[in-house]
Amino acid sequence: MKLALAQMNPVVGDIRANTARMTEVISQAAGRGADLVVFSELSVVGYPPKDLLLKPRFIDDNRRAVDELAKSCRDCGAMVGFACPHEGATGLNLHNAAALLAEGRVIQTYFKQLLPTYDVFDERRYFEPAKSPQVVEFGGKRIGLTICEDIWQGPEDTERSLYDIRPLAELSDAGVDLVVNMSASPFVLGKPAFRSRCFGGHCRRYKLPLAYVNQVGGNDELVFDGNSCFIDGDGKVLAQARDFAEDLLLIDVENPSASRCEMPREGIASVHAALVLGLRDYVRKCGFKRVVIGLSGGIDSAVTAALAVQALGHNNVTGVAMPSRYSSDHSLTDAAALARNLNIRYLTIPIEPAHAAMESMLADAFTGRGSDITEENIQARLRGNILMSLSNKFGCLLLTTGNKSELAVGYCTLYGDMAGGLAVISDVPKTMIYELARFINRDGELIPQSSITKPPSAELKPNQTDQDSLPPYEILDEILRRYVEQEQSRDKIVADGFDDATVARVINLVDRSEYKRKQAAPGLKVTSRAFGFGRRMPIAQNYR
Amino acid sequence: MKLALAQMNPVVGDIRANTARMTEVISQAAGRGADLVVFSELSVVGYPPKDLLLKPRFIDDNRRAVDELAKSCRDCGAMVGFACPHEGATGLNLHNAAALLAEGRVIQTYFKQLLPTYDVFDERRYFEPAKSPQVVEFGGKRIGLTICEDIWQGPEDTERSLYDIRPLAELSDAGVDLVVNMSASPFVLGKPAFRSRCFGGHCRRYKLPLAYVNQVGGNDELVFDGNSCFIDGDGKVLAQARDFAEDLLLIDVENPSASRCEMPREGIASVHAALVLGLRDYVRKCGFKRVVIGLSGGIDSAVTAALAVQALGHNNVTGVAMPSRYSSDHSLTDAAALARNLNIRYLTIPIEPAHAAMESMLADAFTGRGSDITEENIQARLRGNILMSLSNKFGCLLLTTGNKSELAVGYCTLYGDMAGGLAVISDVPKTMIYELARFINRDGELIPQSSITKPPSAELKPNQTDQDSLPPYEILDEILRRYVEQEQSRDKIVADGFDDATVARVINLVDRSEYKRKQAAPGLKVTSRAFGFGRRMPIAQNYR
Repeated sequence: MKLALAQMNPVVGDIRANTARMTEVISQAAGRGADLVVFSELSVVGYPPKDLLLKPRFIDDNRRAVDELAKSCRDCGAMVGFACPHEGATGLNLHNAAALLAEGRVIQTYFKQLLPTYDVFDERRYFEPAKSPQVVEFGGKRIGLTICEDIWQGPEDTERSLYDIRPLAELSDAGVDLVVNMSASPFVLGKPAFRSRCFGGHCRRYKLPLAYVNQVGGNDELVFDGNSCFIDGDGKVLAQARDFAEDLLLIDVENPSASRCEMPREGIASVHAALVLGLRDYVRKCGFKRVVIGLSGGIDSAVTAALAVQALGHNNVTGVAMPSRYSSDHSLTDAAALARNLNIRYLTIPIEPAHAAMESMLADAFTGRGSDITEENIQARLRGNILMSLSNKFGCLLLTTGNKSELAVGYCTLYGDMAGGLAVISDVPKTMIYELARFINRDGELIPQSSITKPPSAELKPNQTDQDSLPPYEILDEILRRYVEQEQSRDKIVADGFDDATVARVINLVDRSEYKRKQAAPGLKVTSRAFGFGRRMPIAQNYR
Repeated sequence: MKLALAQMNPVVGDIRANTARMTEVISQAAGRGADLVVFSELSVVGYPPKDLLLKPRFIDDNRRAVDELAKSCRDCGAMVGFACPHEGATGLNLHNAAALLAEGRVIQTYFKQLLPTYDVFDERRYFEPAKSPQVVEFGGKRIGLTICEDIWQGPEDTERSLYDIRPLAELSDAGVDLVVNMSASPFVLGKPAFRSRCFGGHCRRYKLPLAYVNQVGGNDELVFDGNSCFIDGDGKVLAQARDFAEDLLLIDVENPSASRCEMPREGIASVHAALVLGLRDYVRKCGFKRVVIGLSGGIDSAVTAALAVQALGHNNVTGVAMPSRYSSDHSLTDAAALARNLNIRYLTIPIEPAHAAMESMLADAFTGRGSDITEENIQARLRGNILMSLSNKFGCLLLTTGNKSELAVGYCTLYGDMAGGLAVISDVPKTMIYELARFINRDGELIPQSSITKPPSAELKPNQTDQDSLPPYEILDEILRRYVEQEQSRDKIVADGFDDATVARVINLVDRSEYKRKQAAPGLKVTSRAFGFGRRMPIAQNYR
């Protein structure tokens, strides 16, 4: 039997376009001799469809699309993902479903058993879990159908499981020749390699081959890395699709070792690829072509601009320098050098006239008050206003340039540097920003060296640097990783050797900045815990 | 037996303060002769604690608090809500739990069986459901313990249930004298009356009395209305606590008809009370005392300012008029009249200097382009900058003044009039804003009559009114109610008699404004479906 793993990049909710593309791919795969094309989880609607699933009409449309797709399945079968109404007398009214299409009709339907509710996942909001596995017979094989989370389980004897059923064990007991998993598993640094290890372990344990099809592409905060693969019963990856791009991978199940096997990117290269794809897809799927970015001369905006050029092409990126009375000469020269290196359109709009006007307008109200953070924020918000004006006037999306370390401790101005449609690097800690910059410069200087080496500064008052009020970024980032990603307590972090006062201060800053993050632009997730949809903190709270 | 229903207003996460207050209330209730004090759901931590529940230290702290509380329970028992670790081999590692405390110790623990995952609820993100009911014996009574959702079920024979177990039926079969429900049920217009009807039906059906204790107070988007009550086995409400305020209601179970029975507010009076409480608690629980509000002379900012004065007192509210070259005379006179009526501090800061400066700064970049929405947004964002400057300088929270109709169709400027810490009326449709204004003026004019009667206008260009580009608000609000609250499709709304082009246009505006709402301030929920946490739409999507 010849399997085709169809690693597609759907637009969420665009049922018409997604199914048109799937029809195309089915016919292409059939042309290449495939017997069965496997698509990713909820492929008809794109993952995650979120509350579109609450629209009855949306569910009707997605069902009709499956019926349409079935008609294309004459020479070749297909497994497609969709939201299937649940007709039971109790429970949520949908299933996260997979249909086997063949002979022009829906042959069999499987419902996902394990529904994740952690991090960015909300599947118990929509779906009723099924309570039993399904084996489909196709092309003389007994195939065990699973969907994403169904196969994310540790070995029985070592690990506490979130679920009390084990679909793989049940399929193994039922006797199958092959397990298929239709997935939408978002990228996190290190996850592609972890997936291979985890799935390889399952294959060895159950002595079963696995055909794994993952979605690819960016949908809001999430970037799906693809990396669909075929693993044999010894746990060996024999076929691997490309990462961060659509792919159609053919595997002869009788002779899988003859398949194509791409090398997945790892480390900073994978983060870079995820950000480029996530940025490109967000801009494109929101209906934009071009972006505008404020260039401060610093490393964050330089990295963001370089990513944008890689995602969209230099003709679609505009950089804007907005010097103030506190801007150093090197800010402007570094911003200009970056724009030259990237060959992007470059504007300089000094903010002094509006800055002076705001001061005079507020002078009466501020009488008798010394200067403080207010005066810094005014400048940041004037810049936000200018950038949004360019965005509005020229129909280009504004990208924000703040990193995760800043967003964590609130070193960013709401409606100022936080203004924009997408926060490209808001899940990248500052120490990783330096790695990204070096990676971007791997074949020659795109980001000016001085942007990388000079001490970071907001330049919102004279002689300011980030390290005046923050611990060194190596220490800050490690405290943040422990507090935000791992939910470690202050006591635990201090017990591990960090300075108590520093830890207390950082934690306090993180907790008090929740209101800013509530209003932040969506950011691309690359770590195990990003600010955003997967971290839901109350604002008016007082846990200390 | 004498029951005390302790309707408290906890601060989320403030375990220390919440338990101190609970200890106080237990001793107070004991002093009044109570045998058993019943608190609301998760009373130790406040509802909803959200991802604070993922912090292991938080869970330890909340368990220790229950042990501490138990020590206060010598003369009088208590039922308290907390997050209890789940020790089972599989499943999520917490239960939403209630403990019966007496004789200085934890006597018995019950775990919630029905865990809601719709609208604003995420309980399957944290909690493992229990699979059986619990009866506690106390003071010679067999008491059936339930938590919130456990008793939100329709009669078996008429309605599809989300759950396949029915705690009330099971308790009835087990034989109990009384059901206790510990709840955190947020306010929605009409819900207090619906609750009484629904619970009254249960009591009649099972011939069982119910003691219902609801949380009260605002926590971020949610306002809990209290309205704790005692209903007898005939479904009659014999005792009712106050709405929208803390209360301690004593009931002699042998003679419940002698209890106090407050009249709950209904209709616009209940919406008004919810907004005042939600506003007061958000400001207070975020550590603020005072607020600042931009006054346009229009009805939305007038209603917001009046609510703020009622919540915080006139000394804690500052109104700011920020006239532009397009502002009409009546805008300023209406804003000034409002400030006089409310007796609040009033500032006038014309935006012309910064407006002119921005125009000159952007003139080069905009060469050859006509004027459009950009020029309108610039003004709104300058106002946002001014208001945030006042907020920063004087440490007062900025309230936004946009209504639900505007937020739905995107008639609002990100970082402009959307700037602020709390969106007080963002779940109030424009037609209901008029009702609120009349209610606020019920004892005399607070909101100037001309703010109510003049045609709404953003005044961002000459001679602009809302109705230039929107259908009349009566029609707009009805389309929005159907599309947003009821998830009706375009076809369905048109079939019910609305103009197709208008419906299509409104739906398109709603869908295209998701990115704005993603960055909106939290808003107080008063309808069955608010924008915010209970409505989770993808942004980069294309369902049409």
